[in-house]
Amino acid sequence: MATSNTSPESRVTPIEWETIVSAHERIRSRIHRTPVLTSRSLDALTGAELYFKCENLQKTGSFKIRGAANTILSLSKDEAARGVVTLSSGNHAAAVACAAGWRQIPAWIVMPKNAPAVKCRAVECYGGKITFCEPTISARAEAAARLQAETGAVLVHPYDDDRIIAGQATAAKELLEEVPDLNAILTPVSGGGLLSGTCLGAKGLQAGVQVFGCEPERADDAYRSLKTGELQKLESSDTIADGLRASLAPRTFAILKKHVDGVLLVSEDEIRAAMRFVWERMKIVIEPSSAVALAPLLRPHGCSALNMPQGNNGTSWKIGVIVSGGNVEMP
Amino acid sequence: MATSNTSPESRVTPIEWETIVSAHERIRSRIHRTPVLTSRSLDALTGAELYFKCENLQKTGSFKIRGAANTILSLSKDEAARGVVTLSSGNHAAAVACAAGWRQIPAWIVMPKNAPAVKCRAVECYGGKITFCEPTISARAEAAARLQAETGAVLVHPYDDDRIIAGQATAAKELLEEVPDLNAILTPVSGGGLLSGTCLGAKGLQAGVQVFGCEPERADDAYRSLKTGELQKLESSDTIADGLRASLAPRTFAILKKHVDGVLLVSEDEIRAAMRFVWERMKIVIEPSSAVALAPLLRPHGCSALNMPQGNNGTSWKIGVIVSGGNVEMP
Repeated sequence: MATSNTSPESRVTPIEWETIVSAHERIRSRIHRTPVLTSRSLDALTGAELYFKCENLQKTGSFKIRGAANTILSLSKDEAARGVVTLSSGNHAAAVACAAGWRQIPAWIVMPKNAPAVKCRAVECYGGKITFCEPTISARAEAAARLQAETGAVLVHPYDDDRIIAGQATAAKELLEEVPDLNAILTPVSGGGLLSGTCLGAKGLQAGVQVFGCEPERADDAYRSLKTGELQKLESSDTIADGLRASLAPRTFAILKKHVDGVLLVSEDEIRAAMRFVWERMKIVIEPSSAVALAPLLRPHGCSALNMPQGNNGTSWKIGVIVSGGNVEMP
Repeated sequence: MATSNTSPESRVTPIEWETIVSAHERIRSRIHRTPVLTSRSLDALTGAELYFKCENLQKTGSFKIRGAANTILSLSKDEAARGVVTLSSGNHAAAVACAAGWRQIPAWIVMPKNAPAVKCRAVECYGGKITFCEPTISARAEAAARLQAETGAVLVHPYDDDRIIAGQATAAKELLEEVPDLNAILTPVSGGGLLSGTCLGAKGLQAGVQVFGCEPERADDAYRSLKTGELQKLESSDTIADGLRASLAPRTFAILKKHVDGVLLVSEDEIRAAMRFVWERMKIVIEPSSAVALAPLLRPHGCSALNMPQGNNGTSWKIGVIVSGGNVEMP
């Protein structure tokens, strides 16, 4: 007897490896190939070899320009002429405004009114037109739909879009091209664009690599979704990791159900401590959302929580960490 | 009639170019060849091409390891066996403790009791033994002399030493090796080790390059010394640039009188604004003392204050900035 599966995520079409390669070709000349940094003191502390893919040093200060650039540079002339609209807590907003600037088209941006001022300034600096809304998922969606109806602009969703996911996949692709034998890669997870892209970009190059999402306890929808097998929604969150207050979409959930090796939760204190550690030891500015992907490794025996087989030939694990962004309000 | 000149600085023997080359050979394998970063937004703001030599990413988080390593690696076996003593507000202290660790010899460190906690932790982390003193130049000198008498250790002065100056000169040497046609180089100035070393290291490679020191208005002894032609002392200072509270020695003053092209003063507000700018735009952590060397360029027409001839062929000036360190207390 044939079974019917009608959940939204079952209808998602897989993203092919060639789509990621094309995305990389499309955006390569526009973005930075960000450096991969290491830290002896962090290696000593964790007992692993850590490789930090520094998207905080990326154009617009986060990985988001990868997906936004891929999407906006993919638009036909007619589509582009209508302009773009998006909803974002900040980094995707700046990325869309920046990429829209390259095509000289208008960008309307819906931002929650609790978005950090530094992220709002960045959007304005790139010429984006901001509409503020209440800091809830539903208020954001409504405001974006209204703007889209008024302007006729194309929606560039922050993560529920294959072009975005293929763009975000290029960060892990670059990391593995530079450090080919990683045992695992950790990224933060919010709407799941970066994490699902990392699954596809990493495993497409090296099938054996494990990929973990890291999430604030205070915004644990991805963890709960994967545990229950049902998409869980997060209406709002007050986590310090202001980039991680969204929840998965059916599209990203479908990819994660198939490919992700686990989601690790971290406390607000762990996020702050990891951020301070990177600032003090590595002398690079990272935002709280980035610190989420390092925090699980700083626990005693943090690496063993990854449940990975022992490193090759008894050597230490080689772990990649995607440092997602560096846009943080200065004291 | 023969004139007699008996000022202390007239008795200083010049440091030869070969001394700097030897210092570089001595320390090269122990230190990082730090990256030279650029920033399009800072270039747009200043109308110049800026090249940041990132000694904040240097081992121990500042350029100080260059001079400390050169000095300590130069010690004979007998000298080294007695251990080393120094006086420092922080970065030189950590550098001496680190380099002493390489030779497995004790390091006694006199620090002012208002030194940032992050710098004290670094010294302890490298195994240095700290003695705190009042935050005045004379109290520091007395405490160091007492420790030296008690322990028999060799004094590794933070700047009044040719080995230190030759070591610090290697930062500018590396910068000009990488960006050969700079019009000018800016560094902060305190005791003058970095600035005098930069004069020698830069002009030794490229005679025409101009070298400027940058100093807080609240610790303006180098500015006043060069203006009056007489060595001016600074007993204490409360500038936020905690690495710049010392004053020139006869040795560094003699080099600067001969080679430096000017000293530029900046306010506390300008230091804070420059630090924030680098954190927000370049996403690297710099300490206030480092920001002092960028601050004059952020003024309207800041570059014209350098009194340099127009850039080659009407193009913009190429200016190097030595980012001295990144050791700053996190909020």
